Amino acid sequence: MLKAKVYVSLKKTVVDPQGLAVKNALKSLNYEQEVEEVRVGKLIDIKLNISDKEKAKQIIDQMCKKLLSNPVIEDYSFTLEEVKESN
Amino acid sequence: MLKAKVYVSLKKTVVDPQGLAVKNALKSLNYEQEVEEVRVGKLIDIKLNISDKEKAKQIIDQMCKKLLSNPVIEDYSFTLEEVKESN
Repeated sequence: MLKAKVYVSLKKTVVDPQGLAVKNALKSLNYEQEVEEVRVGKLIDIKLNISDKEKAKQIIDQMCKKLLSNPVIEDYSFTLEEVKESN
Repeated sequence: MLKAKVYVSLKKTVVDPQGLAVKNALKSLNYEQEVEEVRVGKLIDIKLNISDKEKAKQIIDQMCKKLLSNPVIEDYSFTLEEVKESN
């Protein structure tokens, strides 16, 4: 069984209102000096019933393109790791 | 300059409606066989004006507890990496 961790984040050129909101909230908690920039993205954990890593890579890549990310404004990356079958 | 990647995800015992929605969407894209479970979390990138890793660790940990995660239902983890100053 494989577990994919998919990271989806806005492209650098795209304005990120959620990130700005978090930055402002951190400012009001007195972290103004420390924080330079905040950007918020998504982390999608997918447990796969596949043991072949190459096949899993292809499938996750398709999923990212079709559903998990919007390729116009977002970038994605993912990692695959083996997990033990849980009963 | 340091960059923190903060991963916030729902605790395992907490129902994740967003994850279920993604799972169902993947089902309708004919990935029913392959997908076992989907859970959706947040990925927060923070650029810090700090060079001391220990201090950065403490500050990010405080931020997670105060603002970035809800410790009742969410777990968080983070990594720190050095980045070049961009002008």
